Amino acid sequence: MSNPIRVTIWNEFRHEKSHEEVKKIYPDGMHVVIGNALKERGFDVGTATLDEPEHGLTQAVLDATDVLVWWGHMAHREVQDEIVERVQERVLAGMGLIVLHSGHHSKIFKKLMGTSCSLRWREAGENERIWVIQPGHPIAEGLPEYIDIPQVEMYGEHFDIPTPDELVFVSWFKGGEVFRSGCCFFRGKGKIFYFRPGHETHPIYYQAEVRQVIANAARWAAPTPGAPFAYAGGRAINVKEPLEKLG
Amino acid sequence: MSNPIRVTIWNEFRHEKSHEEVKKIYPDGMHVVIGNALKERGFDVGTATLDEPEHGLTQAVLDATDVLVWWGHMAHREVQDEIVERVQERVLAGMGLIVLHSGHHSKIFKKLMGTSCSLRWREAGENERIWVIQPGHPIAEGLPEYIDIPQVEMYGEHFDIPTPDELVFVSWFKGGEVFRSGCCFFRGKGKIFYFRPGHETHPIYYQAEVRQVIANAARWAAPTPGAPFAYAGGRAINVKEPLEKLG
Amino acid sequence: MSNPIRVTIWNEFRHEKSHEEVKKIYPDGMHVVIGNALKERGFDVGTATLDEPEHGLTQAVLDATDVLVWWGHMAHREVQDEIVERVQERVLAGMGLIVLHSGHHSKIFKKLMGTSCSLRWREAGENERIWVIQPGHPIAEGLPEYIDIPQVEMYGEHFDIPTPDELVFVSWFKGGEVFRSGCCFFRGKGKIFYFRPGHETHPIYYQAEVRQVIANAARWAAPTPGAPFAYAGGRAINVKEPLEKLG
Amino acid sequence: MSNPIRVTIWNEFRHEKSHEEVKKIYPDGMHVVIGNALKERGFDVGTATLDEPEHGLTQAVLDATDVLVWWGHMAHREVQDEIVERVQERVLAGMGLIVLHSGHHSKIFKKLMGTSCSLRWREAGENERIWVIQPGHPIAEGLPEYIDIPQVEMYGEHFDIPTPDELVFVSWFKGGEVFRSGCCFFRGKGKIFYFRPGHETHPIYYQAEVRQVIANAARWAAPTPGAPFAYAGGRAINVKEPLEKLG
Repeated sequence: MSNPIRVTIWNEFRHEKSHEEVKKIYPDGMHVVIGNALKERGFDVGTATLDEPEHGLTQAVLDATDVLVWWGHMAHREVQDEIVERVQERVLAGMGLIVLHSGHHSKIFKKLMGTSCSLRWREAGENERIWVIQPGHPIAEGLPEYIDIPQVEMYGEHFDIPTPDELVFVSWFKGGEVFRSGCCFFRGKGKIFYFRPGHETHPIYYQAEVRQVIANAARWAAPTPGAPFAYAGGRAINVKEPLEKLG
Repeated sequence: MSNPIRVTIWNEFRHEKSHEEVKKIYPDGMHVVIGNALKERGFDVGTATLDEPEHGLTQAVLDATDVLVWWGHMAHREVQDEIVERVQERVLAGMGLIVLHSGHHSKIFKKLMGTSCSLRWREAGENERIWVIQPGHPIAEGLPEYIDIPQVEMYGEHFDIPTPDELVFVSWFKGGEVFRSGCCFFRGKGKIFYFRPGHETHPIYYQAEVRQVIANAARWAAPTPGAPFAYAGGRAINVKEPLEKLG
Repeated sequence: MSNPIRVTIWNEFRHEKSHEEVKKIYPDGMHVVIGNALKERGFDVGTATLDEPEHGLTQAVLDATDVLVWWGHMAHREVQDEIVERVQERVLAGMGLIVLHSGHHSKIFKKLMGTSCSLRWREAGENERIWVIQPGHPIAEGLPEYIDIPQVEMYGEHFDIPTPDELVFVSWFKGGEVFRSGCCFFRGKGKIFYFRPGHETHPIYYQAEVRQVIANAARWAAPTPGAPFAYAGGRAINVKEPLEKLG
Repeated sequence: MSNPIRVTIWNEFRHEKSHEEVKKIYPDGMHVVIGNALKERGFDVGTATLDEPEHGLTQAVLDATDVLVWWGHMAHREVQDEIVERVQERVLAGMGLIVLHSGHHSKIFKKLMGTSCSLRWREAGENERIWVIQPGHPIAEGLPEYIDIPQVEMYGEHFDIPTPDELVFVSWFKGGEVFRSGCCFFRGKGKIFYFRPGHETHPIYYQAEVRQVIANAARWAAPTPGAPFAYAGGRAINVKEPLEKLG
């Protein structure tokens, strides 16, 4: 508890270079803005991006990461399968994972969910209202009953994910849709949180409540110290002898 | 986080007075032994027992309690309905509740579950093996893959509870039964943990792993600070005007 | 399968007598309109109302009921506790229960849930859009992606219920709210479905999709034939001898 | 309802050819024995095996399959990725899937779960006792409180799967282990059931209760007719215009 939680923010970091509109909002990249939200709240923050060697996600980086935050959109296919498998194995071994917005279609999220992770969407510039569905949940700490975001891209149901182990938020959109926008999943020893907001053409990661949610989620998703078990390399364990020795 | 979590241990405290066998194991009552486990781990601990006025659970005591631990058995019916309702309301407003062993048939647990909470049982003196089913769960922190308890009373399925929101432990009994022995429930803003071990004729609350689980559970069940919402007195809220004001 | 499912529609049947506006829409009572929807689809339908002796829910009636549908609103408190307990016991023993609209605050629903079952509400006359969240669920059979109801009373989150075992529908309201409007719960051997639509001042139970949902739910909630177990009177079972006899 | 449910039994069908011990028990292959259990109960049954072209799972076969049963063990790696993806897509579009015993490590099950699906195991010849945990569940129809299987291979926790959407069975093993042995998962529009029993060296698929469970599961997993939605090829849907047209 005394050591700060180590978060690595992974960003595709392409829109910010190629789209003037995005560059204006996030001149140094979304990862820097998200990272600052976490630094201000006492986390130990690193970043990694697609165009670095191994996408910045070497085994050493992952081994020193408690919680990985993932933002990707236009270049999901460029993420190497080998790195995706490495991240998956770390999650199953206990690393937390926070997947943001368009990351719903990232290779790593689809691999961990086992479904298409598809949804309805509309570039709308409409407002979104995010309702707290589980008010006692640690990820809702310090929030009001709902969060309003003035301008967003719409995501609507049906969202093709497994039923979340915990459903923290549901969003309302002016155009007539709803969306499960804050979803917790337990996988192996790891904890995963999907959080909807964050389209690159709106300054969403500067909004205080959104920053609060990401920080709450990073605290929730941090590994349980001394968790009892993990399969090495996903292999089953052959127990040669019966365990019974009591009584 | 800086303030210690305030736990109140509620004990029926009858067996320890009336049964010599139990008195030998718990001369000052089980609540004292459980309380020491929590004090050693940094909690702020109080106790309350059935024969005190209002069973020791005045509104003031409950308001100053983050997590209530409940042990009852032979005198469930003597607990006043008014106090049970008071505890229920505090749980829905955010107080954690840890129900131990024979507390499965307590009024407060049955009221919060809505089912009979019945089960199979046998006074056996057999050993129990408690397997960790969700190894990344905070309540499993620091545990081995399973806990062995040398001598217990058997509880077996079917255990008539709602499906737990999180299933942390499943027990094996030598006589041929299994049991969901570590069950998390979210109700209102409160978190509830049912933990099976603890028959009064065995020194189970002295065992290190059992004490560790209760402490882990108390940390998990503590209220989320600044949780956004609670219904006052269970009444619905009439929102006279539409909320929509954006866009 | 060859015998039709026996459904009893329970209606408070007060608004239809005392409010002219409601009488116009449901001259014979809502139970008759709902009952016709089920008769047309092959169910064996009976009705029961508050002002009958034992509210029409004698032990004999309940024993001959596979699925009970519940509509109540202004007179929840007049329902006798003894009858509520009788219904609860039948549900735990396998009878299905469909709770409609304002039944969220009925004694039977609150007793089975263990929470306040409160919510936000507004008499609005707004439209509601009910989205299918779990499209492969039997209760969604034959539905489009969403159902629009032209005029409704609004119910909004937070809805203080246990997390549904299956979440089939989420509603969107023009005024800015969302609501978990189709919720499945397993309790004992019984299946419970809460379905939101149905305010007495709108002709909602004449709408084809709403009728379809209630029929789907009645089929889903019907008891499993030959289910293996139920506790008699909620009592635990003392198994005197170990079960192990094999190997 | 009037048409029989179409089940395809997929079997690796290698042990039965290469191991004398297995050949004696299942001379025509396990798929034939399982298929007979389903034929006797009114299903329309086909079979498919690894060494057929496309493993017997052409698009035409899958399109005409309501529920696919899967048994594999020694040759998981020989199943072509392309066929696995075809099966996954059919499951997400509504086809039921029943995965038996060592199929926990099949490519299709791991792909749909997103976890390692690993477990502890021991070739034991011990007895297994399968307890019914959710007695009202359709898959428990007609069963006693528990099923005893005289000789089995042991599988123990931790079983690295996502939390099942419904947990129907938990197994007890003489050697001291427990296992979640009957697990339901909803994925896309499809329903998946994992059922533990079935080691090839024991005549388990001849046992009446085991046959009953597989038939119950096939009925439960059959597609919901007229389910409202599926993403074509896993692609998101771009909704160009707001849906709102009411009010």
